[in-house]
Amino acid sequence: MSEKKYKKAKTTGRITLPSEENFYDETIELIERLGVDVLRDSDGTKLPDELKKLDEISVYTKYLTARGHNDFAKEHPTEVTRFYLMSEFVTATSEETQIKFMEEYFDQQIKPDYDHDVKEWWEVIDRTTGEVVDINDWEIDKENNIANIKTIPFHEYTVSFLAYCYWDPVHMYNYITNDWDPSIPHAIPLDPRYDATAEFLEKYLDEFLEKNPLTDVIRFTTFFYQFSLIFNKHGLEKHVEWFGYTNTVSPKAFKEFEKEYGYKLRPEDIIDEGYYNSIFRVPSKAFRDYIEFQNKFVTEKAKRLVDIVHKHGKKAIMFLGDHYTGVEPWGKNFANIGLDGVVGSVGDGVTLRLISDIDTPMTEGRFLPYFFPDTFYEGNDPTIEGKDNWVKARRALIRKPLDRIGYGGYMALAYKFTKFIDYIQKVADEFRDLHDIVTKDKPVAKATVAILNHWGAQRKWTPWIVAHGKWYKLSYSYMGITEALSGMDMDVRFINFEDVRNGIDPDIDVIINAGDAYTAFSGGAIFEDEEIVTKLREFVYNGGGFIGVGEPSAHHYGNGRYFQLADVMGVDKEIGFSQSTNKYFVDEVESHFITEDLTKDVDFGESQKNVYSISENTEILEYSNHEVHMAANDYGKGRSFYIAGLPYSQENTRLLKRAIHYVAHKEDELKKYYAEDVRVEVAAFKNLKKYCVINNSLDDVTTTVYDGKGNPKEVTIESADLIWFEE
Amino acid sequence: MSEKKYKKAKTTGRITLPSEENFYDETIELIERLGVDVLRDSDGTKLPDELKKLDEISVYTKYLTARGHNDFAKEHPTEVTRFYLMSEFVTATSEETQIKFMEEYFDQQIKPDYDHDVKEWWEVIDRTTGEVVDINDWEIDKENNIANIKTIPFHEYTVSFLAYCYWDPVHMYNYITNDWDPSIPHAIPLDPRYDATAEFLEKYLDEFLEKNPLTDVIRFTTFFYQFSLIFNKHGLEKHVEWFGYTNTVSPKAFKEFEKEYGYKLRPEDIIDEGYYNSIFRVPSKAFRDYIEFQNKFVTEKAKRLVDIVHKHGKKAIMFLGDHYTGVEPWGKNFANIGLDGVVGSVGDGVTLRLISDIDTPMTEGRFLPYFFPDTFYEGNDPTIEGKDNWVKARRALIRKPLDRIGYGGYMALAYKFTKFIDYIQKVADEFRDLHDIVTKDKPVAKATVAILNHWGAQRKWTPWIVAHGKWYKLSYSYMGITEALSGMDMDVRFINFEDVRNGIDPDIDVIINAGDAYTAFSGGAIFEDEEIVTKLREFVYNGGGFIGVGEPSAHHYGNGRYFQLADVMGVDKEIGFSQSTNKYFVDEVESHFITEDLTKDVDFGESQKNVYSISENTEILEYSNHEVHMAANDYGKGRSFYIAGLPYSQENTRLLKRAIHYVAHKEDELKKYYAEDVRVEVAAFKNLKKYCVINNSLDDVTTTVYDGKGNPKEVTIESADLIWFEE
Repeated sequence: MSEKKYKKAKTTGRITLPSEENFYDETIELIERLGVDVLRDSDGTKLPDELKKLDEISVYTKYLTARGHNDFAKEHPTEVTRFYLMSEFVTATSEETQIKFMEEYFDQQIKPDYDHDVKEWWEVIDRTTGEVVDINDWEIDKENNIANIKTIPFHEYTVSFLAYCYWDPVHMYNYITNDWDPSIPHAIPLDPRYDATAEFLEKYLDEFLEKNPLTDVIRFTTFFYQFSLIFNKHGLEKHVEWFGYTNTVSPKAFKEFEKEYGYKLRPEDIIDEGYYNSIFRVPSKAFRDYIEFQNKFVTEKAKRLVDIVHKHGKKAIMFLGDHYTGVEPWGKNFANIGLDGVVGSVGDGVTLRLISDIDTPMTEGRFLPYFFPDTFYEGNDPTIEGKDNWVKARRALIRKPLDRIGYGGYMALAYKFTKFIDYIQKVADEFRDLHDIVTKDKPVAKATVAILNHWGAQRKWTPWIVAHGKWYKLSYSYMGITEALSGMDMDVRFINFEDVRNGIDPDIDVIINAGDAYTAFSGGAIFEDEEIVTKLREFVYNGGGFIGVGEPSAHHYGNGRYFQLADVMGVDKEIGFSQSTNKYFVDEVESHFITEDLTKDVDFGESQKNVYSISENTEILEYSNHEVHMAANDYGKGRSFYIAGLPYSQENTRLLKRAIHYVAHKEDELKKYYAEDVRVEVAAFKNLKKYCVINNSLDDVTTTVYDGKGNPKEVTIESADLIWFEE
Repeated sequence: MSEKKYKKAKTTGRITLPSEENFYDETIELIERLGVDVLRDSDGTKLPDELKKLDEISVYTKYLTARGHNDFAKEHPTEVTRFYLMSEFVTATSEETQIKFMEEYFDQQIKPDYDHDVKEWWEVIDRTTGEVVDINDWEIDKENNIANIKTIPFHEYTVSFLAYCYWDPVHMYNYITNDWDPSIPHAIPLDPRYDATAEFLEKYLDEFLEKNPLTDVIRFTTFFYQFSLIFNKHGLEKHVEWFGYTNTVSPKAFKEFEKEYGYKLRPEDIIDEGYYNSIFRVPSKAFRDYIEFQNKFVTEKAKRLVDIVHKHGKKAIMFLGDHYTGVEPWGKNFANIGLDGVVGSVGDGVTLRLISDIDTPMTEGRFLPYFFPDTFYEGNDPTIEGKDNWVKARRALIRKPLDRIGYGGYMALAYKFTKFIDYIQKVADEFRDLHDIVTKDKPVAKATVAILNHWGAQRKWTPWIVAHGKWYKLSYSYMGITEALSGMDMDVRFINFEDVRNGIDPDIDVIINAGDAYTAFSGGAIFEDEEIVTKLREFVYNGGGFIGVGEPSAHHYGNGRYFQLADVMGVDKEIGFSQSTNKYFVDEVESHFITEDLTKDVDFGESQKNVYSISENTEILEYSNHEVHMAANDYGKGRSFYIAGLPYSQENTRLLKRAIHYVAHKEDELKKYYAEDVRVEVAAFKNLKKYCVINNSLDDVTTTVYDGKGNPKEVTIESADLIWFEE
């Protein structure tokens, strides 16, 4: 046992750590120092029984529900999960065209489903005309995975085919990435919609629980269907979509859908021109129905598993990710599963709130860095990544707390970094302190802000996410909005266009519409709907605030406007047709409430081209390269703010905050619970008569802080620190 | 008289100079030095009779056909020309909305036509629904120019109104710009579709010719209808479109159109959502018909005037610009007018070929600089602007010569700049030499290049022009194509989509499709037409070349593609929906024929975002900022080249030339009649066994020049010079 002295945690609980074999004494030390109450295993480590048996320590056990039961899978080959996949586009150059539809896929993962009639379940589509090719005009050469098609020369064709997934995508990813031993069998994923599988999975869980009495909590990873993750012929990721339903399909599902919804789904309802119903697509009715259909199924089946866990007197939690498709954690059926909690990975404010805003008894965030050698190597200070992760997430945590935090990886490795252990000890105490306070009161919110898109509350905090945690070129200029809001002193809602149609909730102060044209986030063709534009205009005219980012309300359909709410925003975007009309309104206003704090040029990210002021009344806040990138506009009693893009930064967070105050006519409220320096934020708890000043940077900062009455004082706050003040 | 000695012109003729009073001796000198054969007056100067009477000198007289006959106009107030104009968009906020439709217009120019029933000739449109408001739901307060409309709250409305043009737009422009004496009456333009005007204009011309026997050539400026030029309430240009028909409308025209075409035009056919049928708009059938209808009328009426001129034994030429609407100088009816020539202003290669490609007996270009004090002031060297203008235009002149060149402005002012006079003397001789050679033979063309858009040959060299000679942000990145081609050793055609439908002419080597999405230049919805895409693909597949610039073939209509010819080009553009599909093809080829000459980064102008390679076969020539900006692709026996934008420069001209050679499989032809240095070009005349090396820069250049067999030699060529070689 280590002889070194250490201070024990001031408080205990709410902390999950990984541990492993031959690490007993150090684990005890860590338990005492961090106040750990849960231990878990990690990929590639095993938790010894002596640790599992510790008093007051709960044990999480990772449980992979529907994969890796390969013997069973081989006995029930038609119960393996399936994809609907599209071949590449092939241009016919004669009247007979061959499409090797499997060519781009990884043949160890994907195998065409020849157990079901291809003429019933597959489609060949002439993508030039959009017509489905008559089933008599194509044949499948099953030996060679080739579609022989009668074609019209110089039309493009694709084959939509049903295929088994013979290798679980996540297993495959880890296998390839970590160069696993080829003797390890490929985990085959099973589809619980099929009866034998459904029964088997329940039985297996029951037996597992019998065999693992030292487990306190089953952490499902996750239930059944993997989010879309498909590999190409080189074994590289071909398609990844955190919200994708591509891997949930089956003939049985489609038949049950038809019975329930009264209409037949087509392969194209999943294939979607090859876009696979990306979250960026305005969702079709069929896809919405299909989500609802699978969501009902998955939540019902998941409930049965959770019930089994409960029957054994254990708790059941779920990992947010991997096989979570159909769970729809922000949807109305999720609570029916009866889970005891959700755990997910936290990279920043948005990913924290993805978890903390789920309606479940316990939420836990797994923080960065992972205790892996890519960060924990000699000469590197993992504390920096830790602090960075913590300050990004902490501001969101204060708005909507997690119940627990934890770490993952090799604890014995991280243990060697004593400065890091000191740091996470501090974090553990800070987290518990924070949790105690912030769960006792609702933090002060200056306004209620609603992000308007086609997904609304069904997909909270998810806008612009493609693959969880990854940067995308067409996303980052919008994700600054959600990231900024995740920790801002605002109440945040996600609403859809039906919420607008049904009457905008009077509690909403500001509506944000943001995104590239025609995406589910800006809205696209919905802006042809006079009821929608009318209600939005009315909302602003009567005093509401509107913030448009990128190409808000963009839809060119024949009424002389590109931004359908150009009148509200005072700006439109030139797309070529009105170049002959002179654009005289190009002068920036001398100063403006929104831009008062700016000390440097705004980073608009990908920005937007050719936005212009449509009226001399529009207040131009930034004009360069013959374009408006930032403008404010009065509209009746309301106000709007337009910005060409808002990638995340502390400067842009401040800009958005000021814009919200401005359009909500709450300029006077700005300098209450407020810090002048953009690196510092203030969160207040009125009932507790407390407010905390948080330094979101790794710098030591001295700044003027305003209390709830607007009284300023100078505060100095250390790197990444947090200071509480009483009122 | 000046006593100085001067060299006379080596040859004479083909030169038009302005002259003025009290400038006799100098004029004689200039005639001798430059070989002038035509004198003209200029705005604000008068040509004295003694000059008009000179032997071997012809006299041009500017003739403004249909404006300035104010007494007649006042007697025939309903024969004044008219506009269809749209009010600003007004958002209704209650059930009664007033639109002050005249508010943004200049009331000295625009007066509503209340002589015709507003209920018959006007429209109020609900721009939110696109519906025309019932005529019983609005009234016009004629006293105050207000439309009182029953409205749906928070819908947007516009008023389309018929209005007289009481002040000729060009007269107004000159009047305001030059701050003319307020006592000068505003010139009122007349509409020759009305009988009294038609008769009056012919009679007036007849009398004018009687009164001006010393005139040899009537230069019409131009015939009847001004291109769209509308001023705002401050007297500033509100709307300008060189191709606009906004100022050609009248109830009589609409009624005659209905009789001829069997259907009624609506105001909206002219208003076009406020885009006024910009040349960037995909032209509607109604607008195409209307152009044809007015073109027939204008050319017939113009012919009657030209006949009168001829009857008097004079020649008739026309100025390309001002009131040229309806003339359609590249259309099939133009030759029927019987003009003896066309004269226009030359700023560069495109504007030269706008004139020189008109099918008319004589073409004349008015070169820069104008002899005005803004260039001709002490300390400035106007030779620089002169040389710059000349080298830009000369390369185009060699491809398709003008018959004459000339200058405008105050000759007495320019005369003081002796270096400039020396320079234009050199130009005059060089022009005549060039003209002698290039009209005797067709210059060698390496390939036939066709620019494909909705206008085709009806509008040669006009693509992307808004107002003649002016820079536009959404144009310049494409106008490099036409400017480059105007002087390139290629035969250039302009084809439309019907030309594709009817079968692509086998003489065409390369098709260029270039422009922003949905404009008339890239094509928009025409790419839904399977016949069009099929024929284009077939053309390339069988060996044709394709060059796409900007957003070629862009049209998102539901087939998984944005660029409809993505398969041909090997690239598509990400618009958000396929972000979940990984894009692995990002490596630039190490070297490529097209980019061999590049010594610096390519200037893509406005460029394009998010273009990506769709196949590993695509040759990426430029990749930066996670985007492809330049790529080549093999497609069957054919090839394609994509570039994100091509503003004009010598480097980009070379790039385009190499791309044409490449996609036309004519790499071997490149280094024949070719200069290594991008500032230098070679034009060859095979039958004459001559080629000329031209320096398009103001630098002295030494470079390797290849003759027709590909033999290199070093050539040194002075600033802006031209050297002939024999073969």
